[in-house]
Amino acid sequence: MGKFIVIGERLSATASSVNRAFAEMDPEPILERASAQLKAGAVCLDVNIGPAEDNGPEIMKWVVRLLQDNFDNVPLSLDTSNKAAIEAGISVYNRSRGKPIVNSADAAGRLDYMDLAAANDAICIALCNGDGIARDNDERMGYCQTLLEHGLELGMSEDDIWFDPMFLVIKGMQDKVKEMLECIHMFSEMGLHSTGGLSNSSNGMPKAIRPVMDSSMIAMAMMQGLTSAIVNPNNTRLMETIKSCDIILGNTLYADSYLEL
Amino acid sequence: MGKFIVIGERLSATASSVNRAFAEMDPEPILERASAQLKAGAVCLDVNIGPAEDNGPEIMKWVVRLLQDNFDNVPLSLDTSNKAAIEAGISVYNRSRGKPIVNSADAAGRLDYMDLAAANDAICIALCNGDGIARDNDERMGYCQTLLEHGLELGMSEDDIWFDPMFLVIKGMQDKVKEMLECIHMFSEMGLHSTGGLSNSSNGMPKAIRPVMDSSMIAMAMMQGLTSAIVNPNNTRLMETIKSCDIILGNTLYADSYLEL
Repeated sequence: MGKFIVIGERLSATASSVNRAFAEMDPEPILERASAQLKAGAVCLDVNIGPAEDNGPEIMKWVVRLLQDNFDNVPLSLDTSNKAAIEAGISVYNRSRGKPIVNSADAAGRLDYMDLAAANDAICIALCNGDGIARDNDERMGYCQTLLEHGLELGMSEDDIWFDPMFLVIKGMQDKVKEMLECIHMFSEMGLHSTGGLSNSSNGMPKAIRPVMDSSMIAMAMMQGLTSAIVNPNNTRLMETIKSCDIILGNTLYADSYLEL
Repeated sequence: MGKFIVIGERLSATASSVNRAFAEMDPEPILERASAQLKAGAVCLDVNIGPAEDNGPEIMKWVVRLLQDNFDNVPLSLDTSNKAAIEAGISVYNRSRGKPIVNSADAAGRLDYMDLAAANDAICIALCNGDGIARDNDERMGYCQTLLEHGLELGMSEDDIWFDPMFLVIKGMQDKVKEMLECIHMFSEMGLHSTGGLSNSSNGMPKAIRPVMDSSMIAMAMMQGLTSAIVNPNNTRLMETIKSCDIILGNTLYADSYLEL
């Protein structure tokens, strides 16, 4: 599948400083976080503007232009429950470095995000959940099938649907985690692209542990065939692990300097 | 399969200080390295006395007693090309914490190490190589079958044969590494125990990279079902990774303090 695709998670309204910057359309905090992530090796940035019920379209257009103007049309993942905002973002999106990513559809109430992606020739993240979290891989693969068929019926290429098994919170759902990893292997065996929000794995753990756990999880997930993830690229240990796993899998060629590349 | 089994690699004659301590039967350097490895979480120690052609049996008996007397009958892996030395070590081995490990048989010139293990009710590491390194998984699994059948014919339990796919040197054999990892998955699917010398993976890499690469490799190998490895337990990053992967796989229960346990 080629080199693992690192999507930076740090432009998220869940961080209060970012939330404020979106609301006030203040470019500096956004540009700073974008720059830090790209320098660390992210090749795509997730832009989570939150629900943005009032002026979502305006905010998303502003931020898409801001980021693409300043960072050579950097690929973006548009992440909000406000569909109009995603469409607005796509309307000003420069595709010189690839299609925009719609984050995300699921197999229930958000199935229509796939329609939005298809109508706009975008990549769609397909979260394999229904109204709640999939209970097991039977459910997860059922949702995968629903999402895949829906996308194909809409004329999408399967390469433009990135399946998300949902990285479960280990602290609380530990007994379900191994099965989720097996699901990634199933995606891989089917030749499907995959992604997911890695940091959820270590949610609630002591701060010092999170980089350790996330690094271990990403290596295991990459072994299972995960092709991309939404991560904190400023977690050095994590990025070192991703680069090393790309070497082990043969996705990139070994050089003594590979950690700096 | 339960918690991953960490075998410490640092009592090896390939280190000149250890080699000298074996030759002179000087306890201090041995005890110091043993203690450091056990404190770091090793549950078994590999004792590699080298070829030890002259006084191998004498040295091995001495070191087995030394280690077991000082560390509560710690389990040991007896590692030398001198068969008489392995037998001598087993003759004084205290089994209160399990069987000794014979390191190692292969499917060619060292097949008779399996006989030695069987005759002494020991665990045997079964390196899936013939006269040279297996070229692919067809060869590797052929050797696995040879070793498994030989052990079973000798009356061994399959639980006492730990299959070693041989961790290949990434710097030089990068294109073969993924296949080796797939072999570990095959062992796992067959319900077999597995092990291997992890550090070989990063052989020849800059010193600063080795803990990064070894940690990434162990996580991927554990995802494939590896049940044990011969490692440097004083590599903190590596031990943190192993503990985290044991959590992810459900081999140990999560607690916020799991890295200290």
